[in-house]
Amino acid sequence: MGPKTAQRLTYHLLRAPEAEARMLASALIAVRDEVVYCESCFNISAGPLCPICADPSRDDSRVCVVEEPLDVLALERTAAFKGRYHVLHGAISPMDGVGPDRLRIRELLERAAERCRAGAPYAEVVLATNPTLEGEATAMYLAERLGADVDSITRIARGIPVGGDLEYADEVTLVRAMQGRRAFEVAER
Amino acid sequence: MGPKTAQRLTYHLLRAPEAEARMLASALIAVRDEVVYCESCFNISAGPLCPICADPSRDDSRVCVVEEPLDVLALERTAAFKGRYHVLHGAISPMDGVGPDRLRIRELLERAAERCRAGAPYAEVVLATNPTLEGEATAMYLAERLGADVDSITRIARGIPVGGDLEYADEVTLVRAMQGRRAFEVAER
Repeated sequence: MGPKTAQRLTYHLLRAPEAEARMLASALIAVRDEVVYCESCFNISAGPLCPICADPSRDDSRVCVVEEPLDVLALERTAAFKGRYHVLHGAISPMDGVGPDRLRIRELLERAAERCRAGAPYAEVVLATNPTLEGEATAMYLAERLGADVDSITRIARGIPVGGDLEYADEVTLVRAMQGRRAFEVAER
Repeated sequence: MGPKTAQRLTYHLLRAPEAEARMLASALIAVRDEVVYCESCFNISAGPLCPICADPSRDDSRVCVVEEPLDVLALERTAAFKGRYHVLHGAISPMDGVGPDRLRIRELLERAAERCRAGAPYAEVVLATNPTLEGEATAMYLAERLGADVDSITRIARGIPVGGDLEYADEVTLVRAMQGRRAFEVAER
C-alpha cells in the first residue's frame, strides 16, 4: 500500500463509525488467517485448491507460469488461456538476493517431472514472467531446468502494445517486435 | 510543431542575430524545395533514391511496410531489419476520409507484382503498420491485396513492451501477448 492509499484509509477511518473500523480490522486478520496458497499452483486461494486448479474443464496439459497472483487475475480477465497456472511469487533477482530457491520453482519442476513420469508430459509450458531483466532471467532459468520434461516451452509475445506507435516505441521493444514477427493470419483480427 | 516548440523558436529568434533568422528561413525553404520522396519506397530523400534503396548490401527480397518516414528511422536505429522499406504515408482511416488511394498502396502492390512477374517474388513482406485500429485495418487490406504475389506476409509482434508488467497491461495487449506466444529460444536473450 502506497502513502496516498494509506492516507485516504486513515482519513476515511477517522470519519467512519467505530464499528466499521472494528469490522475492517477483523476482516484484515481474516485475510491473513483464512487465505492460503493453492497446493498445486500457489495462487491465493480460500481452500487447498484454487478455483482454477479445481475446475475440471481447464486444459490439464498446459501450464502458464507467472510471477504474481495478480498476473493470474489479469490473464483470466482476457480468457485467452484455458490451461492451468503456476505462481512463482516473484522473479529471480540476484541484486535483491532473490535466488531460485526463494521462489516456487522447485514445485513447478516437480509438477512437470511428475507428469513426465506418468507418461503425460505437459504439452506446453507458457513462460509469462514479465519482460523485465528479472522476468527474462527467470524465463531463461526455467527453460533450462524444465528441459526434456515437457513437450514445448513458449514465451508470451514482447512487442508494441495495442494502440501504440512504432515511432514512440523504445528500441529494445522494436527489436522484439521485429524479431517476434509472425505469419499474418487474415483471421487474427 | 506544437505551441510550446513554436514559442521556444519565436523567443530564440528574437534574441538571435538577424543573420541567423535569415539562414533559418532559407533552410526552411530548402527543405521544401530539395527534399523529395524516394521513387522506390517513398521515404524522404535528397535524391531520386533514398540511401536505403540505393544501398546494394540490403536484402532485396524483404520489404517492411510502415506508415511514416519516422517509423523507418525508428526501425533503422534498432538494426533489426536488413531489407528494404515501403512508406505508405498514413493508414487507412474511413473516419478521416483516408482510403487506400490516398496512400502509397498502389505503388507497393506494383513493386510486389513486378518482382512476381520477374520470377523473384518477395520472400517476405513485413507489415509494420501501428497496432492501432487504422494500422490493423491497413495491414488486413494489404495482406488481402498482396495475396499470391509474395511468398510470405508477416506482422510485427504486438505484446508487452520490454520493461512492462503483465499486471498493468491492458486486456487487448495481454490477449495479443498470449496469442502471439512462440517457442522459447534459449539464444533469444
